Amino acid sequence: MTISTAARPTDAAIAETLIASATAARASTLGRFRTQLAVDNKFSVGFDPVTEADREAETVIRAIIAERFPDHGIIGEEWDAKATETAYNWIIDPIDGTRAFISGVPVWGTLIGLTHEGKAIAGLMEQPFTGERWMAVGGQLEHTRNGGPQPAGVSSVAKLSQARTSTTSPDMFRGPHLSAWTELSSRVLQVRYGLDCYAYCLLASGHIDLVVEVQLKHVDIAPLIPIIEAAGGVVTTWDGGRAENGGTCVAAATPQLHDEAMRVLREAMLD
Amino acid sequence: MTISTAARPTDAAIAETLIASATAARASTLGRFRTQLAVDNKFSVGFDPVTEADREAETVIRAIIAERFPDHGIIGEEWDAKATETAYNWIIDPIDGTRAFISGVPVWGTLIGLTHEGKAIAGLMEQPFTGERWMAVGGQLEHTRNGGPQPAGVSSVAKLSQARTSTTSPDMFRGPHLSAWTELSSRVLQVRYGLDCYAYCLLASGHIDLVVEVQLKHVDIAPLIPIIEAAGGVVTTWDGGRAENGGTCVAAATPQLHDEAMRVLREAMLD
Repeated sequence: MTISTAARPTDAAIAETLIASATAARASTLGRFRTQLAVDNKFSVGFDPVTEADREAETVIRAIIAERFPDHGIIGEEWDAKATETAYNWIIDPIDGTRAFISGVPVWGTLIGLTHEGKAIAGLMEQPFTGERWMAVGGQLEHTRNGGPQPAGVSSVAKLSQARTSTTSPDMFRGPHLSAWTELSSRVLQVRYGLDCYAYCLLASGHIDLVVEVQLKHVDIAPLIPIIEAAGGVVTTWDGGRAENGGTCVAAATPQLHDEAMRVLREAMLD
Repeated sequence: MTISTAARPTDAAIAETLIASATAARASTLGRFRTQLAVDNKFSVGFDPVTEADREAETVIRAIIAERFPDHGIIGEEWDAKATETAYNWIIDPIDGTRAFISGVPVWGTLIGLTHEGKAIAGLMEQPFTGERWMAVGGQLEHTRNGGPQPAGVSSVAKLSQARTSTTSPDMFRGPHLSAWTELSSRVLQVRYGLDCYAYCLLASGHIDLVVEVQLKHVDIAPLIPIIEAAGGVVTTWDGGRAENGGTCVAAATPQLHDEAMRVLREAMLD
């Protein structure tokens, strides 16, 4: 594996690229939201809501990144990865939450992140219908709405019994994961479903305290990790490792809440 | 039971009252959204997120209605009903979707409706964070965002296999209702959870095709019925009756989709 020796981009250059590419993608995403778009339903293999919006937005984002950082890798959801064995890789999910998108629910988001040798170092989530953006660069989180600053930072919730909890769908859990989720969800304050990336951003703003998921892809979670961490939260896999590669995930407002959630999940899986 | 002979209010007077009371409630609802509000958790009986926002908004809405229509009844979620044995009753749910509200998710809504001898004849749903309003008066639906007109009207989806479906939570179903939901949800295109009133409004705008619920209260559904019907949709209980009194509910974009959903639910409950 060849690691390029490309110099580290400045925080300002990273932030400008995140914002420029997310802004350019809006015409493709928001422009097709709540319209009769040509949903490419692959009925033969179930429902796969890959849309023109998704593909076009990724193309636009890739073009902006490639122009600014020609020697960086780019990994997206819709198109083949470009030169990923480099030190810096941009990670794109043009519409995270395509099912919400297709049902007109404004909790999908455009995710763009940057990893350095596999570790997520910057990330952006933008929800253009509500005008919200969460961006973390250089360990600093910025939450804005229609350009104006909004409060950011995790809650102080330290106990499962007080945790406002979210997972994308209870239907995603199978076998030991299902037992673990059933046990965990019975102990929390309340559960919200169907939020995808929006749940992690609400965690980063103190409104949700715990997000527990399985079946995540790299592009679903890597851009969100810097946002969660810059907000003061803790995010790992169910095994306690870094979450960049996807799979399972536990994101919590506080280390105490993270510990308690991990313990309940682990014990329920052993039963 | 005494039915008053109060004259029917004009459509204009109804619309003005709906808008004036929803607008006045915003300070209490949106003003407390995503803030650290004093959630009145009744831990002894589980999680009951009755908030100050809820109580204060209902007080504001009641005052405006009572001033304009002193001989009408008012039924709300937070305070005792006033003179409900009249021909006209106003139905208020100041924050439908309090669990979404508490988690910072902008899919809750202020619901205000009017019934005449038990039948819903006008209704409004307002989501002040996104600036959206759906209002039906005199059989006419108006969907606006920040005051500007938006498309309205149901989709033409006639088959379960193509239906974007929603229910508030899979955890609400028990016994035969659970069997019926499990069967139905396995046959639809996709399921979205956690939307409360927002799901019915997305149905009225053509983005969701089917909403199936249980455990509804009168105030959760009565204000939405005129919106669904004015959009061209069909809404009944699982028994096929009028849905004003709550309990179960099937709302569909087309009569064909409603028929198919009812058939699947009925057959699954008999198995």
